[in-house]
Amino acid sequence: MYERLKGFRDFFPPEMAARRAVVDTVEDVARRYGFREIDTPRLEPAEMWTDKAGDDIVDELYAFEDRGGRHVTLTPELTPTVARMVVDRGQELPKPIKFFSTRPFWRYEAVQQGRFREFHQTNADIFGTSEPTADAEVLAFAGDALTELGLDGGDFEFRVSHRDILGNLIESFESDVNTREAIRAVDKRAKVDDDEYLGLLAEAGLSRADARSFDDLIADDDLDAVAEAGNEAVNAAVDNLRAVLDAAADFGVREHCEVSLATARGLDYYTGVVFECFDSTGEVSRSVFGGGRYDDLIGSFGGQPTPAVGVAPGHATLHLLCQRAGVYPDEAVSTDYYVLSVGDTRPETLDVARALRTRGHVVETDLNDRGFGSQLSYADGVNAETVVVVGERDLSEGNVTVKNMESGDETTAPFDSFPGEHERPTYDDFV
Amino acid sequence: MYERLKGFRDFFPPEMAARRAVVDTVEDVARRYGFREIDTPRLEPAEMWTDKAGDDIVDELYAFEDRGGRHVTLTPELTPTVARMVVDRGQELPKPIKFFSTRPFWRYEAVQQGRFREFHQTNADIFGTSEPTADAEVLAFAGDALTELGLDGGDFEFRVSHRDILGNLIESFESDVNTREAIRAVDKRAKVDDDEYLGLLAEAGLSRADARSFDDLIADDDLDAVAEAGNEAVNAAVDNLRAVLDAAADFGVREHCEVSLATARGLDYYTGVVFECFDSTGEVSRSVFGGGRYDDLIGSFGGQPTPAVGVAPGHATLHLLCQRAGVYPDEAVSTDYYVLSVGDTRPETLDVARALRTRGHVVETDLNDRGFGSQLSYADGVNAETVVVVGERDLSEGNVTVKNMESGDETTAPFDSFPGEHERPTYDDFV
Repeated sequence: MYERLKGFRDFFPPEMAARRAVVDTVEDVARRYGFREIDTPRLEPAEMWTDKAGDDIVDELYAFEDRGGRHVTLTPELTPTVARMVVDRGQELPKPIKFFSTRPFWRYEAVQQGRFREFHQTNADIFGTSEPTADAEVLAFAGDALTELGLDGGDFEFRVSHRDILGNLIESFESDVNTREAIRAVDKRAKVDDDEYLGLLAEAGLSRADARSFDDLIADDDLDAVAEAGNEAVNAAVDNLRAVLDAAADFGVREHCEVSLATARGLDYYTGVVFECFDSTGEVSRSVFGGGRYDDLIGSFGGQPTPAVGVAPGHATLHLLCQRAGVYPDEAVSTDYYVLSVGDTRPETLDVARALRTRGHVVETDLNDRGFGSQLSYADGVNAETVVVVGERDLSEGNVTVKNMESGDETTAPFDSFPGEHERPTYDDFV
Repeated sequence: MYERLKGFRDFFPPEMAARRAVVDTVEDVARRYGFREIDTPRLEPAEMWTDKAGDDIVDELYAFEDRGGRHVTLTPELTPTVARMVVDRGQELPKPIKFFSTRPFWRYEAVQQGRFREFHQTNADIFGTSEPTADAEVLAFAGDALTELGLDGGDFEFRVSHRDILGNLIESFESDVNTREAIRAVDKRAKVDDDEYLGLLAEAGLSRADARSFDDLIADDDLDAVAEAGNEAVNAAVDNLRAVLDAAADFGVREHCEVSLATARGLDYYTGVVFECFDSTGEVSRSVFGGGRYDDLIGSFGGQPTPAVGVAPGHATLHLLCQRAGVYPDEAVSTDYYVLSVGDTRPETLDVARALRTRGHVVETDLNDRGFGSQLSYADGVNAETVVVVGERDLSEGNVTVKNMESGDETTAPFDSFPGEHERPTYDDFV
């Protein structure tokens, strides 16, 4: 007997039915916003990460040498792949380019609640516009997707910040600082104690006093105060963030956004507005997902400089949030009809089943040569709404029996009118 | 600049729209038959293949050692994984268990037309019944899926055989034969010349004369003659094949099936009826996909003996068949509305877009701060059906302009009734 790998999951039908409902909802909202589905290789040249990505990603790669001696890796995220695609064909595509896709990614990391080694994300990205409206549309897509899942304003919040506020504000205090390191320190702010956090800022080159003043500013989330304290670049970033929030208001998603300057996002490639979605109740303590602007990535992949902004809801953490809020779909299969055969009636049973399937319904029939009781029990097990009994005796009178599985009520119906003219015949149509 | 790996594909939106339409159709038919969606790990312990699979598969594995020292592989097929799942939880699940899923698999093999190193299949399997009705349902699902894609009886055929006919018929000639090798020889029958084929049968232990008589029998596809020539086991297998074809008639799929005893399927785990789908015109020369019964696999994985039958349409060859028959979907994106903003009208533009999206439509708006002409050209590029122009002057009179992009006709409509009570307003609603 073989064992599944740790951090990988089997989704049996009931779990999968619920996951499918969530993915369909998120993708449906993406389609409505004009994001277009793409599909991408699960395996890529490892250099796409080892050349540029942070050590935390590189250390978690499922990388290996293939039979042709290529250094390849299972993709740990989508962004470098879509960057490669935009470099390849971006010139021919009308801008903005709006892609979405749902697929698994892989990272060799510690398995915990809501975190697996194989994990599923719906990525949505816009390439070819640096307008604040585009950042806001990404927020609006994410907000609508969550709302459509049944979550409301009390369930989640988008903590929105701007990479250039943090970086330039730090430099306003001390021009000789290691900005990247300081931003990483801010990213760890909520996860380490005060002393360690100030220590990290000190390592990045900020004096204890400056670190304290800097932290007071970002803790207050007061954009006026930040603009006043910061240099010209800080002011430009504050203006950009405000423009995004104004556009978010026009999209109807402003109510879900709050300025949160300490939100830095771990990834190095972000360049502008960044945001993370959190459970408002705090019960799900981790970030549910995040996104932001990454204007330099396409250029760094050898393409024409192409601004970009995106978001990637992860389905494991989304599951936790929906579950906490009581809106995760039922983990159960559903069946419209079970057509039950009694005696030598397979041809007629399959005629009825076929006609119902042609109308788009989910229909099962006996595949085990079972008796009445055993078939009825199976029908119940797959949550059949209606059971149609095709029996020899009924048939000799031109009838079938129609049973409502919820109430247990049953009645006879003419064989010829099941389904006949009916699109979705039920017990109620024949009493 | 990075290059995609050989044998891996990027699907840009137009190609993906067509592929999605095909996958949706196949999956929709699977759902109607009561197959239930599952999802499964892309990485499994390599032993699941190296212990049992034929050399051709083992030599093509993307196998490697993970960071924990486990010998793992990208999955080259689904069957061992679902076998593992049925072993794990089969006892709790009501029988028959009916699974489907669409996902990629990986084999390091020579890239050619319709064959890639990363390839997508929709697997559908039934566990827990050995009744011929189940084999026939698998054929019926496959037949309906192809019909639903727009293919008809002149486009494709299912060549149906039975593993126990071939094996036992060979043994009827010569009890000391290597049956497995002989079946592999039959599987190569159409691909090698007569001499090589008879040579392979000779290697398996069949004299030249017996090989010739054996081949005459399977070439004729005459079940009566085969039953007469064969031993008891051959007769049982012929009876089983006939029972499956009778059930296929009740399912309405018999017309697509023809007995073809030389159809052996390459995989070793088949035990009963096997079949392959071919292009009837022969233009697509390779098998489009195949399936069959594999009753021993679950037991060999350490589970309760559980009969099983399945099929796995592959989307690359299906693409070739649909293309040959002229029924492959258009490779183009579609857009219901482009809401075009002129002047300072972003709030109103986004109100209209939002209302249309709430009704489920695909809607795009300007994300690049562009002028009228440039927006209209983008709308045309994404095949927008209707353009709604929200301009300052129109708005001051309470109107928007509605343009039918196919005819070029336009008219004004009250801002309040776009969409207002309309579910899907178009030009025609306002003239």
